[in-house]
Amino acid sequence: MTSHPLAYAARAARFRPSGVRSVFDIAMRPGMISLAGGSPDLSVLPREQVAELAAGMIRGAGPDALQYQPAQGLDGTIEAIREVMRAEGVDAAHDRIQVTAGSQMGLQVLTTLLADPGDTVIAEAPTYVGALSVFGGLEARVAQVEIDEHGMLPDALEATIARVRATGSRIPFLYTVPTFGNPSGASMSAARREAVVELCRREGILIVEDNPYGMLAFDDEHRLPLYARDPENVVYLGSFSKIFSPGVRVGWLAAPPELRGRVQLAVEAMTIHASVVGQVLAQRFITETDWRGHVRRSADVYHARRDALMAALDEHMPPGTTWTRPHGGFFTVVTLPPGTPVDGLLDAAIDARVVYVPGSEFMADGSRADTLRLAYSFEPEHRLAEGARRLGEAIRALG
Amino acid sequence: MTSHPLAYAARAARFRPSGVRSVFDIAMRPGMISLAGGSPDLSVLPREQVAELAAGMIRGAGPDALQYQPAQGLDGTIEAIREVMRAEGVDAAHDRIQVTAGSQMGLQVLTTLLADPGDTVIAEAPTYVGALSVFGGLEARVAQVEIDEHGMLPDALEATIARVRATGSRIPFLYTVPTFGNPSGASMSAARREAVVELCRREGILIVEDNPYGMLAFDDEHRLPLYARDPENVVYLGSFSKIFSPGVRVGWLAAPPELRGRVQLAVEAMTIHASVVGQVLAQRFITETDWRGHVRRSADVYHARRDALMAALDEHMPPGTTWTRPHGGFFTVVTLPPGTPVDGLLDAAIDARVVYVPGSEFMADGSRADTLRLAYSFEPEHRLAEGARRLGEAIRALG
Repeated sequence: MTSHPLAYAARAARFRPSGVRSVFDIAMRPGMISLAGGSPDLSVLPREQVAELAAGMIRGAGPDALQYQPAQGLDGTIEAIREVMRAEGVDAAHDRIQVTAGSQMGLQVLTTLLADPGDTVIAEAPTYVGALSVFGGLEARVAQVEIDEHGMLPDALEATIARVRATGSRIPFLYTVPTFGNPSGASMSAARREAVVELCRREGILIVEDNPYGMLAFDDEHRLPLYARDPENVVYLGSFSKIFSPGVRVGWLAAPPELRGRVQLAVEAMTIHASVVGQVLAQRFITETDWRGHVRRSADVYHARRDALMAALDEHMPPGTTWTRPHGGFFTVVTLPPGTPVDGLLDAAIDARVVYVPGSEFMADGSRADTLRLAYSFEPEHRLAEGARRLGEAIRALG
Repeated sequence: MTSHPLAYAARAARFRPSGVRSVFDIAMRPGMISLAGGSPDLSVLPREQVAELAAGMIRGAGPDALQYQPAQGLDGTIEAIREVMRAEGVDAAHDRIQVTAGSQMGLQVLTTLLADPGDTVIAEAPTYVGALSVFGGLEARVAQVEIDEHGMLPDALEATIARVRATGSRIPFLYTVPTFGNPSGASMSAARREAVVELCRREGILIVEDNPYGMLAFDDEHRLPLYARDPENVVYLGSFSKIFSPGVRVGWLAAPPELRGRVQLAVEAMTIHASVVGQVLAQRFITETDWRGHVRRSADVYHARRDALMAALDEHMPPGTTWTRPHGGFFTVVTLPPGTPVDGLLDAAIDARVVYVPGSEFMADGSRADTLRLAYSFEPEHRLAEGARRLGEAIRALG
């Protein structure tokens, strides 16, 4: 035993267990159906081909894949990233791309560089729980803006900006997941995109656009990233996690070159650079496989799963329950009817061998306890149906 | 062009280009001999065997190597890490190990959790430049303690503790590279280790022991890590970068379980978890190859290179120049004779096509401009000799 208790820094108290990660272990229990984590389905991946890529990465690139490399990222990886962005209608110059150890790190670094303690980040209500943990860890406040099925409401955004500024708190940036949002599944319409970009430009507020799901559409609508509309005032966060593999831990950001350079310095202090084996594997996946076909097949899988989950919710949720109907991505948010008991619901669901993430995790103030985030990305259709059945049972058992 | 300049957070100014990384690009220029970066030599690696490991990682672990995984790290990777630590005489329990995206991230997270702005970290003079960039980025001060060839002087440490405390600044931890230190190459003797551990325990100061080079000894002396002497008051930072590959970006720390748990939360906020492909590759390297043989062969290579560099320094440095003679690791520090002109020396060296890191990079106050860190880890012997010749020429040209 240590003879003196460890004295933590004040900021240590800001790192709390996230609801998503806490249920990660639970989701691994035998017999458990997980509607919790946002894991992609990797069964569609051409495994033998990826195995050959991995071997070729060592044989071909040789020691380079195993050595220290430039902190911006490998040139070849940056070019592969540019190809991915072009598929979404975005042309970003090489010197605007910074490779990160996942886009979580991109957001961590941006917030470190842009938000002083006490500043107020604006985000959607609800928003990505991992973003809230970054903001909290760096002592930024969060103001969340109402959304509907077409994403953030520009009027509500304008009102929030005014309200925050009236408190004297500075707004370092707007954080948004405009396409197939996490957790809502909602996407900004083209009109909303234009309005939000225009409003932020006028108000002098930088936009941080997080776009891990943008390519996983269930329809043919092209949802042009905000970055393409105003590359000088939007920072784009991208990721290989949902179109290839989360395990490589490779993401990127696109930003004006001066900001990109500062991001590189912070990345160096944090982890020197992203995993090179991860970078080379992701790069080879883009340059040497039919990656667009893989993304299309993945989206088809998620599309069918969304349908299976929606049908099962229709069948098993209590009357008056509502949920979002996303046109892409991984998630829906379920809102229980008014008056439904929610205390103990997660425990009851786990007892019934189904796990989800409480909606309150996606609100900085812990509100919205009457909502649940359900992921349809990972479980096959029959298990999604059974999960919805178990969830309905758990809700009724508490009622 | 953006219509408004980007407003950075105050802490953004704390991320400055590191001397080591700035010379990274220069080191890549054709014809340049690099005595700068601390890159391991990877030519000793059994490349075909590692290629097979990489392919097998995808074929065998299948999607697991590509998926999200627990934030502590893969169980198998943690067991491989325990085997590596046992080879150094340390037995660390599973729940004390946290896998990180390189030990740089381990230090970043520990400093985040333990050091409030204005606190004073104690470190060796000189110390690892990447540590200084972590401390600076988190607004901690640094007090550096005199060392000799046997490492940190306990009396100087005690005096520094008293001096810092007299200023009212709290000491969150002592940061030390006790074995084959970066940049000095010096190692703490057994007596010094005992004295430092005892002093810190008595004073209630946590020790953060950074040990990337410990296994790369040129002799048979066993240098027991500080962690083994007081696991409740020492946090151990380990890395696969020097014994296998920096490109996997996998390191770890060993700490009391409560602190380890908090580190996991901060790792999650920063990058979710370390690269899984990196973890699996490192794990398989330990479990499926003669990794101890590889480390031994690597140490032999570095040993011969140290000898080659020392011989060339004897031949080419001006009279009165001194340098450390490390018994392991990657680096030596050269001290120029009093009165040698040093302004413009790095530029002159680069013009002569040899690059090193100025010793001032390893001092928080930028002192010791009369010293140079030379790495003998990466260049083959004939190029080390030629590098020393060019360096001597550059020094004389300025004199």
